[in-house]
Amino acid sequence: MKAQRMRSPRRDLTETLLMALRGSLARFLRAQITTVAQQQQRAHSVAIVGAPFSKGQKRRGVEHGPKAIRDAGLVGRLSSLDCPVHDFGDLNFQHLDKDEHFMQVPFPRTVGRANQLLSSAVSRAVGAGHTCVMLGGDHSLAIGSVEGHAQQCPNLCLIWVDAHADINTPLTSPSGNLHGQSVAFLLKELRDKMPNIPGFSWMKPFLSSADLVYIGLRDVDPGEHYILKNLGIQYFTMRDIDRLGIPRVMEVTLDHLLGRKQRPIHLSFDIDAFDPSLAPATGTPVNGGLTYREGIYLTEEIHNTGLLSVMDLVEVNPALGTSREAVEATAAVAVDVIASSLGQTREGAHVAFQEIPSPTADTEQLCL
Amino acid sequence: MKAQRMRSPRRDLTETLLMALRGSLARFLRAQITTVAQQQQRAHSVAIVGAPFSKGQKRRGVEHGPKAIRDAGLVGRLSSLDCPVHDFGDLNFQHLDKDEHFMQVPFPRTVGRANQLLSSAVSRAVGAGHTCVMLGGDHSLAIGSVEGHAQQCPNLCLIWVDAHADINTPLTSPSGNLHGQSVAFLLKELRDKMPNIPGFSWMKPFLSSADLVYIGLRDVDPGEHYILKNLGIQYFTMRDIDRLGIPRVMEVTLDHLLGRKQRPIHLSFDIDAFDPSLAPATGTPVNGGLTYREGIYLTEEIHNTGLLSVMDLVEVNPALGTSREAVEATAAVAVDVIASSLGQTREGAHVAFQEIPSPTADTEQLCL
Amino acid sequence: MKAQRMRSPRRDLTETLLMALRGSLARFLRAQITTVAQQQQRAHSVAIVGAPFSKGQKRRGVEHGPKAIRDAGLVGRLSSLDCPVHDFGDLNFQHLDKDEHFMQVPFPRTVGRANQLLSSAVSRAVGAGHTCVMLGGDHSLAIGSVEGHAQQCPNLCLIWVDAHADINTPLTSPSGNLHGQSVAFLLKELRDKMPNIPGFSWMKPFLSSADLVYIGLRDVDPGEHYILKNLGIQYFTMRDIDRLGIPRVMEVTLDHLLGRKQRPIHLSFDIDAFDPSLAPATGTPVNGGLTYREGIYLTEEIHNTGLLSVMDLVEVNPALGTSREAVEATAAVAVDVIASSLGQTREGAHVAFQEIPSPTADTEQLCL
Repeated sequence: MKAQRMRSPRRDLTETLLMALRGSLARFLRAQITTVAQQQQRAHSVAIVGAPFSKGQKRRGVEHGPKAIRDAGLVGRLSSLDCPVHDFGDLNFQHLDKDEHFMQVPFPRTVGRANQLLSSAVSRAVGAGHTCVMLGGDHSLAIGSVEGHAQQCPNLCLIWVDAHADINTPLTSPSGNLHGQSVAFLLKELRDKMPNIPGFSWMKPFLSSADLVYIGLRDVDPGEHYILKNLGIQYFTMRDIDRLGIPRVMEVTLDHLLGRKQRPIHLSFDIDAFDPSLAPATGTPVNGGLTYREGIYLTEEIHNTGLLSVMDLVEVNPALGTSREAVEATAAVAVDVIASSLGQTREGAHVAFQEIPSPTADTEQLCL
Repeated sequence: MKAQRMRSPRRDLTETLLMALRGSLARFLRAQITTVAQQQQRAHSVAIVGAPFSKGQKRRGVEHGPKAIRDAGLVGRLSSLDCPVHDFGDLNFQHLDKDEHFMQVPFPRTVGRANQLLSSAVSRAVGAGHTCVMLGGDHSLAIGSVEGHAQQCPNLCLIWVDAHADINTPLTSPSGNLHGQSVAFLLKELRDKMPNIPGFSWMKPFLSSADLVYIGLRDVDPGEHYILKNLGIQYFTMRDIDRLGIPRVMEVTLDHLLGRKQRPIHLSFDIDAFDPSLAPATGTPVNGGLTYREGIYLTEEIHNTGLLSVMDLVEVNPALGTSREAVEATAAVAVDVIASSLGQTREGAHVAFQEIPSPTADTEQLCL
Repeated sequence: MKAQRMRSPRRDLTETLLMALRGSLARFLRAQITTVAQQQQRAHSVAIVGAPFSKGQKRRGVEHGPKAIRDAGLVGRLSSLDCPVHDFGDLNFQHLDKDEHFMQVPFPRTVGRANQLLSSAVSRAVGAGHTCVMLGGDHSLAIGSVEGHAQQCPNLCLIWVDAHADINTPLTSPSGNLHGQSVAFLLKELRDKMPNIPGFSWMKPFLSSADLVYIGLRDVDPGEHYILKNLGIQYFTMRDIDRLGIPRVMEVTLDHLLGRKQRPIHLSFDIDAFDPSLAPATGTPVNGGLTYREGIYLTEEIHNTGLLSVMDLVEVNPALGTSREAVEATAAVAVDVIASSLGQTREGAHVAFQEIPSPTADTEQLCL
């Protein structure tokens, strides 16, 4: 069990100590412990699960996201870190023939079935001890990914990096698209606000709104804004990032989710969180997004907790770039944030060296 | 009267209370009051005044700025906020045949006459209770825009967002162009330094240099630098923004102008304040400008005061983009900062919702 | 002697006073003194030394860097500041016919000889009282540039702005290229770790690792990381810049190097420190680099110390841009950071004005 693996006896003890402390000393100590966790984390294997699925929205092409990200060198990059990589290939989703709209929601049963399949795959990968990377596909897939993760780690917390809140219900959604409603399926607090959507009877909401933090919002529908405020969800818009800076945003995010106890992190990363100048090949770009460095800093911080357990990377749509370069740039950024989440650093690492090598008599002879 | 409208009895009382406080508590309370003002502001109507004029400088094309900004969807965007929009179309400027240089200043009478016309139009719009948006045209138009505003609101303050200070006199200007001298016409402190330029006998300087703040400077002529320092004008170069961050810059700006009393704001926004990578279609681009997010943050902060009364958006020149995309991008950024100044937010708004809608028996029946 | 010139009796006295103070007051006073030094600095002449050399790495074209930077208007720009400019043209490097690899290091004797030549040229320029600007060429040239500088100013300190640490030894280098090993040649602490590389018998390491600060690192080899940590070198990765901001990074850098005593600065600026979107025409670009404004701020701060003595600008490779625009943009950024290092400001300067000019009777007559 993943949750078990995260809580070694040593960690429980230090956690008790940390809870007695406050503020910067606690953070300092936690950082020290984290460094150890990070070393341990390096040994974890990574499972890649491809999810070529697009029925959570109406634009074609996002089902080719997993291929684009792999073609940009994902497996090689992760292999160069110190963790074994298992690519489980793509899931085989099916489009259901008889799948009428529910209210204005298109393809409800197809989306429900795909997420059920994905949930099983993620649950198996996590259960087998892997850190799981899910490649979308559209963001409706987070329903299954988080649900499968929660089967193994019921105490997980969720960091949702996105230009959009994806927290509409079928009754508030302007478009009806399920990729804009994923979070509403997960939250216990919205149970009474969700109708019985066909295709989703296999799951129940399980996440508390206190276990969720948003980063990168800048296009929030009126109903979504009302829900965010009404449930008291912690979120950081781009304005908040402008105001606080990404280091402080990450500090508050991790304090909010992990301040009282360490637990597995689910990172659901929509590529449209980045500025469209960096990641143009996506379905719903919005100006004024994360810089490259903010995205890397964010994921470095998540890696440094030593607690990343599942990561989604969604909404890379190779059909929407205006050029091959635009598509490749988008996929390259996706690879970079996945690698950064899994331990690639800008500082370098000195695993390979125990001392600075000195020249020997043999070396000198090389100089003829 | 606009000035009257801004000073409700309730506001006068709270202002007196606020003046007895200092620092962050005062700011906190002011923010609360501002939220109320903001709600009221939403009800205000917006008047758009087009000013297709280019004789304040020598490059052709900036007279097509108003059309480019409208074509980028300005009216639709503002209508989607909660304020009625009145587009009064373009003013009809005339080029005077007999208009010799004054010293090295070209077209003095033509620029003077155009600003006189614009001054009347802005004064009427403000007097009728509108928040006024003036679309340039070159930045010499700010002379008339601010003058007309001041007819209605003699206590206004001025925020000048620009790569340039536009504060040369005819005796310090390297180029002679009047779009680089607009502020010198406005300032009482420079009265004795300005010759009698033909075309401007209709106006007198009326603004105190303490009522002006610059943001975004990065290309300041030697004479301008001397004037800025000599008059003790508050300004923030890009270096200052690098050093302090845009949130602190806006805090100091608003404290400087509104700290002692609330009053109407005139925002004069030159599109060349933005980095040329964002707004290339302009006459005098300078590298190292505002990011998109800094521009949006700046205008959000101005909107949040509830005191924006007139806004200029100038120097979009559709003839100078290297491609159609470059021109459209420039105009789109112009629309974004205007919308942000008038209440568009990145956080979303929940005006439309009083509660999260719940599914009903009817809703369930939609699930066949 | 440059070192002598830097230590006027007045400066020695104030330095003694400053050493008795701490923190922000000392910084304030130092800034005041610096302003004076800055005025003095303006009188210094600038010597440009071109170094068209590429054998420290394997990609062709970087030998055309000096021409590209001059073509972008370097001399004219520097002349517009208040300092005389002497362009000494390009050094004439020779490729040695008999120059076998040493270990995996290519062209050791050719690189050694070129650096010996460059060292003499820089030493002469500094000895003649000039501030010296060395235009590369690849970054292996810093060996000779810093060595020549140290001949005149043995107490110099070194600020290395680069995506890479360039501190491999031949025994740790993954590529063998000498442009990734320059710093290892300079450091006394690595003396025993360096084999006797043919071509370098003319020089000895002379720099202490405490006299070096890195800024901009984001691609550090494992051996390099080990050396940085082992020697306790002060460095700022892009992550550190994200975390601290460039103003704080510069404050710590200058405190570290100049906190106890003022001394000449050698700035070794690799154009690949900038983000590839700004400076694409370079041999080893790495995503997530300095913004334009960070680069300008950094060099403004160095100028403001009044202590810049030699500057390298290296790794502009006109053969590697994907378009003429890409090459010109890279060279333009190079010119901007050189000009900023030598006194160009974003705030402007008021050297030319003693008062705001007033109109006279004659002026008025110009108004016919």
